[in-house]
Amino acid sequence: MLKLFYAPHTCALASHIALEEAGAGYEAVRVDFKKNAQRAPEYLAVNPKGRVPSLATDLGILTETPAILAFIAQSYPKARLAPLEDWFAFAQVQAFNSYLCSTVHVAHAHRMRGYRWVDDHTAIEAMKKKVPTSVGECFDLIERTMLQGPWVMGESYTICDPYLFTLAQWLEADGVDPARFPRVLDHRARMAARPSVKKALAEELGSAS
Amino acid sequence: MLKLFYAPHTCALASHIALEEAGAGYEAVRVDFKKNAQRAPEYLAVNPKGRVPSLATDLGILTETPAILAFIAQSYPKARLAPLEDWFAFAQVQAFNSYLCSTVHVAHAHRMRGYRWVDDHTAIEAMKKKVPTSVGECFDLIERTMLQGPWVMGESYTICDPYLFTLAQWLEADGVDPARFPRVLDHRARMAARPSVKKALAEELGSAS
Repeated sequence: MLKLFYAPHTCALASHIALEEAGAGYEAVRVDFKKNAQRAPEYLAVNPKGRVPSLATDLGILTETPAILAFIAQSYPKARLAPLEDWFAFAQVQAFNSYLCSTVHVAHAHRMRGYRWVDDHTAIEAMKKKVPTSVGECFDLIERTMLQGPWVMGESYTICDPYLFTLAQWLEADGVDPARFPRVLDHRARMAARPSVKKALAEELGSAS
Repeated sequence: MLKLFYAPHTCALASHIALEEAGAGYEAVRVDFKKNAQRAPEYLAVNPKGRVPSLATDLGILTETPAILAFIAQSYPKARLAPLEDWFAFAQVQAFNSYLCSTVHVAHAHRMRGYRWVDDHTAIEAMKKKVPTSVGECFDLIERTMLQGPWVMGESYTICDPYLFTLAQWLEADGVDPARFPRVLDHRARMAARPSVKKALAEELGSAS
């Protein structure tokens, strides 16, 4: 059975939702960031990067959200979570998810994880100040040029949707007013109403309480 | 015919090499970063993100290195640039490329593009100081846990190899001593000897002179 290693309020939620959408059999295993369990030897044996998500499969361990999402889509083709037969359309899905991981998530990470890129305390504080601008610019681009509607890729729900939803959850805490992005906001509301999202969130936030 | 929009000394080199390896018919179109051509309306019409690479195809435009690399592998299956029939192996390829784009390239970018994440000049300078450490940690992980050898994924050359080569080109300028990573260094030397790499580099650096 698949095991998803996650922590609440992280991008692991995207893979969690996708596993639900796929109808996969899996166990969700919480990694306790408050106890720094992601740096413990037991978890580093799973993922030497010390990050979540990780997906343990019968064949080995996978990391990195875009890779895990595409693997779920390919492993559960009946769920139709990606246009697997159309290479160009599949590449568009991957381009969107790649933008989220390499640009949007990175912009967000400068609010709480600035120590990754600088040691100086004053510089870490300076980084935090720009997060509303840099994250806001990303979502402006998503709103204007990427989100086709009603789902990210248009009429078909794909693995882009749980990933966008996950990062859009962080807008308020990042100091960005979601009202600037009515289409993203509408997408977020429709995602929040899906049973898969409710179940994944209940599992993650319930176990955190 | 495919058109690859690139700038010298950027990650577009990975897609350039992959097009050569695939035996694709393509035109390489230089975007002049010195003239800020990536922010000009003509190029923003191609890629609203104002970044390279972009790949113009008959079906539309693709962006983001991991997505372009996977598209090339899928479009030219005879070149065997990815394990397309094995979802788990394909996901491992994607996980490696996702790590390069979201973590390794981002660590590097704090040397020259710190303004993306902070406005304060002193903070930008402080960011530069950590680049040797953060990039070094990434390559330490690649050396110890990811690069299977002789190629990234073991015996088979894949789309991971031109991407790793591209980022490994930047080690010296990032203040990292490549001698710390003998396996990465060996990989880099073997990549540099491939005709595809020589051709792509000649095209990029020749047109820059």
